[in-house]
Amino acid sequence: MARIAIDMDNVMADLTQHLLDVYEQQYGVSIDPAALDNVPEGGAFPEGVAYKILQTPGFFRGIPVMKDSQEVIKALSEQHEIFVVSAAMEFPHSLTEKLAWLNEHFPFISWRNIVFCGAKTIVEADYMIDDHDKNLSTFKGKPLLFTAPHNLLLTDYRRVNNWKEVAEYFALDTAPVV
Amino acid sequence: MARIAIDMDNVMADLTQHLLDVYEQQYGVSIDPAALDNVPEGGAFPEGVAYKILQTPGFFRGIPVMKDSQEVIKALSEQHEIFVVSAAMEFPHSLTEKLAWLNEHFPFISWRNIVFCGAKTIVEADYMIDDHDKNLSTFKGKPLLFTAPHNLLLTDYRRVNNWKEVAEYFALDTAPVV
Repeated sequence: MARIAIDMDNVMADLTQHLLDVYEQQYGVSIDPAALDNVPEGGAFPEGVAYKILQTPGFFRGIPVMKDSQEVIKALSEQHEIFVVSAAMEFPHSLTEKLAWLNEHFPFISWRNIVFCGAKTIVEADYMIDDHDKNLSTFKGKPLLFTAPHNLLLTDYRRVNNWKEVAEYFALDTAPVV
Repeated sequence: MARIAIDMDNVMADLTQHLLDVYEQQYGVSIDPAALDNVPEGGAFPEGVAYKILQTPGFFRGIPVMKDSQEVIKALSEQHEIFVVSAAMEFPHSLTEKLAWLNEHFPFISWRNIVFCGAKTIVEADYMIDDHDKNLSTFKGKPLLFTAPHNLLLTDYRRVNNWKEVAEYFALDTAPVV
Protein backbone atom coordinates (compact mmCIF):
# COMPACT_ATOMS: atom_id res chain seq x y z
CA MET A 1 0.00 0.00 0.00
CA ALA A 2 1.39 3.33 -1.06
CA ARG A 3 0.52 6.81 0.12
CA ILE A 4 -0.68 8.98 -2.77
CA ALA A 5 -1.06 12.77 -2.43
CA ILE A 6 -3.63 14.12 -4.89
CA ASP A 7 -4.00 17.77 -5.85
CA MET A 8 -7.49 19.29 -6.23
CA ASP A 9 -7.42 22.18 -8.73
CA ASN A 10 -7.00 20.95 -12.32
CA VAL A 11 -6.61 17.38 -11.06
CA MET A 12 -9.77 16.44 -9.13
CA ALA A 13 -11.59 19.68 -9.99
CA ASP A 14 -11.77 21.08 -13.52
CA LEU A 15 -10.76 24.60 -12.56
CA THR A 16 -9.75 25.59 -16.08
CA GLN A 17 -13.17 24.76 -17.54
CA HIS A 18 -14.93 26.54 -14.67
CA LEU A 19 -12.79 29.65 -15.15
CA LEU A 20 -13.71 29.74 -18.85
CA ASP A 21 -17.40 29.24 -18.04
CA VAL A 22 -17.57 31.87 -15.29
CA TYR A 23 -15.62 34.35 -17.40
CA GLU A 24 -18.08 33.90 -20.26
CA GLN A 25 -21.05 34.30 -17.89
CA GLN A 26 -19.67 37.43 -16.23
CA TYR A 27 -17.96 39.15 -19.16
CA GLY A 28 -19.94 37.79 -22.11
CA VAL A 29 -16.77 36.75 -23.89
CA SER A 30 -15.92 33.20 -24.91
CA ILE A 31 -12.25 32.25 -24.86
CA ASP A 32 -11.03 29.41 -27.06
CA PRO A 33 -9.59 26.76 -24.67
CA ALA A 34 -6.62 26.42 -27.04
CA ALA A 35 -5.61 29.98 -26.09
CA LEU A 36 -4.67 28.63 -22.64
CA ASP A 37 -2.09 26.18 -23.99
CA ASN A 38 1.47 26.89 -22.87
CA VAL A 39 0.44 30.11 -21.17
CA PRO A 40 0.89 30.66 -17.41
CA GLU A 41 -2.37 30.18 -15.50
CA GLY A 42 -4.67 33.17 -15.94
CA GLY A 43 -2.49 34.56 -18.72
CA ALA A 44 -5.12 34.12 -21.44
CA PHE A 45 -7.54 36.42 -19.59
CA PRO A 46 -7.32 40.22 -19.35
CA GLU A 47 -4.86 41.16 -16.62
CA GLY A 48 -6.08 40.50 -13.08
CA VAL A 49 -9.41 39.02 -14.20
CA ALA A 50 -8.66 35.35 -13.54
CA TYR A 51 -7.36 36.18 -10.05
CA LYS A 52 -10.46 38.28 -9.38
CA ILE A 53 -12.74 35.42 -10.42
CA LEU A 54 -10.82 32.99 -8.17
CA GLN A 55 -11.45 35.37 -5.26
CA THR A 56 -15.22 35.39 -5.87
CA PRO A 57 -17.18 33.64 -3.08
CA GLY A 58 -18.72 30.47 -4.47
CA PHE A 59 -16.22 29.96 -7.28
CA PHE A 60 -14.47 26.95 -5.77
CA ARG A 61 -17.74 25.41 -4.55
CA GLY A 62 -19.07 25.25 -8.10
CA ILE A 63 -16.14 23.70 -9.96
CA PRO A 64 -17.11 20.62 -12.01
CA VAL A 65 -15.53 17.31 -11.12
CA MET A 66 -12.70 16.19 -13.39
CA LYS A 67 -13.81 13.37 -15.71
CA ASP A 68 -13.40 9.87 -14.26
CA SER A 69 -11.73 11.19 -11.07
CA GLN A 70 -14.44 9.90 -8.72
CA GLU A 71 -14.32 6.30 -9.94
CA VAL A 72 -10.54 6.14 -10.13
CA ILE A 73 -9.90 7.80 -6.76
CA LYS A 74 -12.49 5.50 -5.18
CA ALA A 75 -10.63 2.50 -6.58
CA LEU A 76 -7.26 3.99 -5.58
CA SER A 77 -8.50 4.55 -2.02
CA GLU A 78 -9.41 0.89 -1.71
CA GLN A 79 -5.86 -0.24 -2.45
CA HIS A 80 -3.80 2.69 -1.23
CA GLU A 81 -3.72 5.46 1.35
CA ILE A 82 -4.84 8.57 -0.49
CA PHE A 83 -4.55 12.15 0.76
CA VAL A 84 -6.09 15.17 -0.89
CA VAL A 85 -3.48 17.92 -0.72
CA SER A 86 -4.63 21.34 -1.87
CA ALA A 87 -2.76 24.64 -1.72
CA ALA A 88 -5.89 26.37 -0.45
CA MET A 89 -4.29 28.91 1.90
CA GLU A 90 -3.78 31.50 -0.83
CA PHE A 91 -7.57 31.86 -1.16
CA PRO A 92 -8.94 31.90 2.40
CA HIS A 93 -12.61 31.76 1.42
CA SER A 94 -11.89 28.63 -0.58
CA LEU A 95 -11.22 26.60 2.58
CA THR A 96 -14.81 25.85 3.57
CA GLU A 97 -15.90 25.71 -0.08
CA LYS A 98 -13.27 23.11 -0.92
CA LEU A 99 -14.20 21.01 2.11
CA ALA A 100 -17.91 21.14 1.19
CA TRP A 101 -17.02 20.30 -2.42
CA LEU A 102 -15.02 17.26 -1.31
CA ASN A 103 -17.79 16.11 1.03
CA GLU A 104 -20.30 16.32 -1.82
CA HIS A 105 -18.31 14.79 -4.66
CA PHE A 106 -15.90 12.51 -2.78
CA PRO A 107 -17.88 11.47 0.33
CA PHE A 108 -15.69 8.37 0.74
CA ILE A 109 -12.66 10.52 1.60
CA SER A 110 -12.38 11.04 5.36
CA TRP A 111 -11.54 14.44 6.87
CA ARG A 112 -8.46 12.66 8.23
CA ASN A 113 -7.16 12.41 4.66
CA ILE A 114 -7.57 16.04 3.65
CA VAL A 115 -4.75 18.60 3.78
CA PHE A 116 -5.12 22.29 2.98
CA CYS A 117 -1.72 23.89 2.88
CA GLY A 118 0.43 26.60 1.41
CA ALA A 119 3.74 25.15 0.26
CA LYS A 120 3.56 21.39 -0.36
CA THR A 121 7.18 20.85 0.67
CA ILE A 122 5.97 19.52 4.04
CA VAL A 123 4.04 16.62 2.48
CA GLU A 124 5.50 13.14 2.78
CA ALA A 125 4.05 10.55 0.42
CA ASP A 126 5.09 7.89 -2.07
CA TYR A 127 3.36 9.52 -5.05
CA MET A 128 2.13 13.02 -5.80
CA ILE A 129 -0.35 13.69 -8.61
CA ASP A 130 -0.21 17.41 -9.38
CA ASP A 131 -0.28 19.82 -12.32
CA HIS A 132 2.39 22.18 -10.97
CA ASP A 133 6.13 21.99 -11.40
CA LYS A 134 6.61 24.00 -8.17
CA ASN A 135 4.86 21.26 -6.17
CA LEU A 136 6.46 18.29 -7.89
CA SER A 137 10.02 19.63 -8.06
CA THR A 138 10.59 19.49 -4.27
CA PHE A 139 8.69 16.23 -3.78
CA LYS A 140 10.84 13.34 -2.57
CA GLY A 141 8.51 10.56 -3.74
CA LYS A 142 7.47 9.71 -7.30
CA PRO A 143 5.91 12.72 -9.03
CA LEU A 144 3.13 12.33 -11.59
CA LEU A 145 2.37 15.39 -13.72
CA PHE A 146 -1.34 15.71 -14.43
CA THR A 147 -1.75 17.40 -17.79
CA ALA A 148 -3.10 20.95 -17.72
CA PRO A 149 -2.94 23.65 -20.42
CA HIS A 150 -0.13 25.48 -18.61
CA ASN A 151 2.19 22.44 -18.34
CA LEU A 152 2.06 20.90 -21.84
CA LEU A 153 5.73 21.54 -22.57
CA LEU A 154 7.05 20.25 -19.25
CA THR A 155 9.11 17.09 -19.77
CA ASP A 156 10.66 16.55 -16.35
CA TYR A 157 8.02 14.18 -15.00
CA ARG A 158 6.05 11.05 -15.80
CA ARG A 159 2.90 12.52 -17.32
CA VAL A 160 -0.70 11.36 -16.87
CA ASN A 161 -3.14 12.97 -19.30
CA ASN A 162 -6.35 11.98 -17.56
CA TRP A 163 -7.73 9.74 -14.82
CA LYS A 164 -7.93 6.69 -17.08
CA GLU A 165 -4.16 6.92 -17.41
CA VAL A 166 -3.84 7.19 -13.63
CA ALA A 167 -5.90 4.00 -13.33
CA GLU A 168 -3.62 2.29 -15.84
CA TYR A 169 -0.50 3.53 -14.07
CA PHE A 170 -1.62 2.01 -10.78
CA ALA A 171 -3.02 -1.06 -12.58
CA LEU A 172 -6.43 -0.49 -11.11
CA ASP A 173 -9.44 -2.52 -12.00
CA THR A 174 -11.99 0.27 -12.47
CA ALA A 175 -14.72 -1.35 -14.49
CA PRO A 176 -16.94 1.71 -14.97
CA VAL A 177 -14.06 3.72 -16.38
CA VAL A 178 -12.25 1.41 -18.78
CA MET B 1 18.06 25.32 9.81
CA ALA B 2 15.48 22.81 10.91
CA ARG B 3 11.85 22.45 9.93
CA ILE B 4 9.59 22.71 12.98
CA ALA B 5 5.89 21.76 12.84
CA ILE B 6 3.88 23.59 15.50
CA ASP B 7 0.40 22.63 16.64
CA MET B 8 -2.22 25.35 17.30
CA ASP B 9 -4.74 24.18 19.91
CA ASN B 10 -3.22 24.05 23.41
CA VAL B 11 0.18 25.00 21.98
CA MET B 12 -0.15 28.36 20.21
CA ALA B 13 -3.75 28.90 21.32
CA ASP B 14 -4.90 28.43 24.92
CA LEU B 15 -7.92 26.30 24.03
CA THR B 16 -8.28 24.86 27.53
CA GLN B 17 -8.59 28.28 29.16
CA HIS B 18 -11.05 29.44 26.51
CA LEU B 19 -13.18 26.34 26.97
CA LEU B 20 -13.37 27.00 30.73
CA ASP B 21 -14.22 30.68 30.13
CA VAL B 22 -16.90 30.04 27.51
CA TYR B 23 -18.42 27.25 29.62
CA GLU B 24 -18.69 29.58 32.60
CA GLN B 25 -20.23 32.33 30.44
CA GLN B 26 -22.78 30.02 28.84
CA TYR B 27 -23.64 27.70 31.71
CA GLY B 28 -22.85 29.89 34.73
CA VAL B 29 -20.67 27.20 36.26
CA SER B 30 -16.99 27.59 37.07
CA ILE B 31 -14.83 24.48 36.73
CA ASP B 32 -11.62 24.23 38.73
CA PRO B 33 -8.80 23.91 36.14
CA ALA B 34 -7.31 21.14 38.32
CA ALA B 35 -10.35 19.00 37.45
CA LEU B 36 -8.98 18.74 33.90
CA ASP B 37 -5.71 17.13 34.98
CA ASN B 38 -5.21 13.61 33.65
CA VAL B 39 -8.70 13.51 32.18
CA PRO B 40 -9.28 13.06 28.42
CA GLU B 41 -10.08 16.36 26.70
CA GLY B 42 -13.64 17.46 27.42
CA GLY B 43 -14.01 14.81 30.11
CA ALA B 44 -14.34 17.32 32.96
CA PHE B 45 -17.44 18.86 31.38
CA PRO B 46 -20.94 17.35 31.28
CA GLU B 47 -21.16 14.83 28.45
CA GLY B 48 -21.17 16.38 24.97
CA VAL B 49 -20.87 19.95 26.23
CA ALA B 50 -17.20 20.56 25.36
CA TYR B 51 -17.76 19.20 21.83
CA LYS B 52 -20.84 21.40 21.47
CA ILE B 53 -18.87 24.48 22.52
CA LEU B 54 -16.09 23.63 20.04
CA GLN B 55 -18.72 23.51 17.27
CA THR B 56 -19.98 27.02 18.12
CA PRO B 57 -19.18 29.57 15.38
CA GLY B 58 -16.67 32.07 16.70
CA PHE B 59 -15.15 29.79 19.36
CA PHE B 60 -11.81 29.26 17.61
CA ARG B 61 -11.58 32.89 16.52
CA GLY B 62 -11.67 34.05 20.14
CA ILE B 63 -9.09 31.77 21.75
CA PRO B 64 -6.42 33.67 23.72
CA VAL B 65 -2.82 33.37 22.57
CA MET B 66 -0.65 31.02 24.64
CA LYS B 67 1.72 32.94 26.89
CA ASP B 68 5.06 33.82 25.25
CA SER B 69 4.21 31.95 22.05
CA GLN B 70 4.33 35.02 19.81
CA GLU B 71 7.83 36.12 20.85
CA VAL B 72 9.30 32.62 20.81
CA ILE B 73 7.75 31.58 17.48
CA LYS B 74 8.91 34.87 15.95
CA ALA B 75 12.46 34.12 17.12
CA LEU B 76 12.16 30.49 15.97
CA SER B 77 10.99 31.60 12.52
CA GLU B 78 14.09 33.75 12.11
CA GLN B 79 16.41 30.79 12.57
CA HIS B 80 14.31 27.88 11.36
CA GLU B 81 11.58 26.96 8.92
CA ILE B 82 8.39 26.84 10.94
CA PHE B 83 5.07 25.36 9.83
CA VAL B 84 1.81 25.71 11.72
CA VAL B 85 0.13 22.30 11.50
CA SER B 86 -3.40 22.14 12.86
CA ALA B 87 -5.86 19.25 12.74
CA ALA B 88 -8.64 21.64 11.75
CA MET B 89 -10.61 19.37 9.39
CA GLU B 90 -12.69 17.87 12.21
CA PHE B 91 -14.32 21.26 12.78
CA PRO B 92 -15.04 22.70 9.30
CA HIS B 93 -16.14 26.14 10.53
CA SER B 94 -12.82 26.47 12.35
CA LEU B 95 -10.89 26.68 9.06
CA THR B 96 -11.49 30.35 8.27
CA GLU B 97 -11.50 31.26 11.97
CA LYS B 98 -8.11 29.68 12.51
CA LEU B 99 -6.65 31.39 9.47
CA ALA B 100 -8.00 34.78 10.61
CA TRP B 101 -6.67 34.10 14.13
CA LEU B 102 -3.20 33.32 12.76
CA ASN B 103 -3.22 36.42 10.56
CA GLU B 104 -4.11 38.58 13.56
CA HIS B 105 -1.82 37.11 16.20
CA PHE B 106 1.03 35.73 14.08
CA PRO B 107 1.13 38.07 11.06
CA PHE B 108 4.76 37.14 10.38
CA ILE B 109 3.74 33.59 9.43
CA SER B 110 3.13 33.30 5.68
CA TRP B 111 0.13 31.40 4.27
CA ARG B 112 2.77 29.19 2.64
CA ASN B 113 3.68 27.90 6.11
CA ILE B 114 0.21 26.97 7.32
CA VAL B 115 -1.22 23.46 7.11
CA PHE B 116 -4.77 22.47 8.09
CA CYS B 117 -5.09 18.73 8.06
CA GLY B 118 -6.78 15.72 9.51
CA ALA B 119 -4.21 13.07 10.38
CA LYS B 120 -0.71 14.51 10.86
CA THR B 121 0.97 11.36 9.57
CA ILE B 122 1.60 13.09 6.25
CA VAL B 123 3.74 15.85 7.79
CA GLU B 124 7.48 15.69 7.24
CA ALA B 125 9.57 17.86 9.57
CA ASP B 126 12.56 17.70 11.88
CA TYR B 127 10.62 18.64 15.02
CA MET B 128 6.97 18.53 16.01
CA ILE B 129 5.66 20.52 18.99
CA ASP B 130 2.26 19.06 19.91
CA ASP B 131 0.17 18.15 22.95
CA HIS B 132 -1.22 14.89 21.54
CA ASP B 133 0.28 11.42 21.73
CA LYS B 134 -1.63 10.42 18.56
CA ASN B 135 0.21 13.09 16.56
CA LEU B 136 3.65 12.56 18.05
CA SER B 137 3.64 8.74 18.06
CA THR B 138 3.72 8.42 14.25
CA PHE B 139 6.09 11.35 13.71
CA LYS B 140 9.47 10.39 12.26
CA GLY B 141 11.35 13.49 13.45
CA LYS B 142 11.99 14.63 17.01
CA PRO B 143 8.75 14.94 18.98
CA LEU B 144 8.31 17.59 21.69
CA LEU B 145 5.32 17.15 23.99
CA PHE B 146 3.78 20.49 24.94
CA THR B 147 2.25 20.15 28.39
CA ALA B 148 -1.54 20.16 28.56
CA PRO B 149 -3.85 18.95 31.36
CA HIS B 150 -4.70 15.77 29.45
CA ASN B 151 -1.07 14.67 28.92
CA LEU B 152 0.54 15.18 32.34
CA LEU B 153 1.26 11.49 32.86
CA LEU B 154 2.72 10.83 29.42
CA THR B 155 6.41 10.01 29.68
CA ASP B 156 7.25 8.87 26.13
CA TYR B 157 8.49 12.23 24.86
CA ARG B 158 10.77 15.13 25.63
CA ARG B 159 8.39 17.50 27.43
CA VAL B 160 8.21 21.30 27.14
CA ASN B 161 6.02 22.91 29.78
CA ASN B 162 5.73 26.34 28.20
CA TRP B 163 7.17 28.54 25.45
CA LYS B 164 10.12 29.68 27.59
CA GLU B 165 11.22 26.06 27.70
CA VAL B 166 10.84 25.82 23.92
CA ALA B 167 13.11 28.87 23.61
CA GLU B 168 15.65 27.22 25.90
CA TYR B 169 15.44 23.95 24.00
CA PHE B 170 16.28 25.66 20.73
CA ALA B 171 18.79 27.96 22.48
CA LEU B 172 16.99 31.04 21.24
CA ASP B 173 17.92 34.54 22.22
CA THR B 174 14.45 35.92 22.97
CA ALA B 175 15.14 38.95 25.12
CA PRO B 176 11.52 39.89 25.92
CA VAL B 177 10.76 36.40 27.17
CA VAL B 178 13.72 35.35 29.31
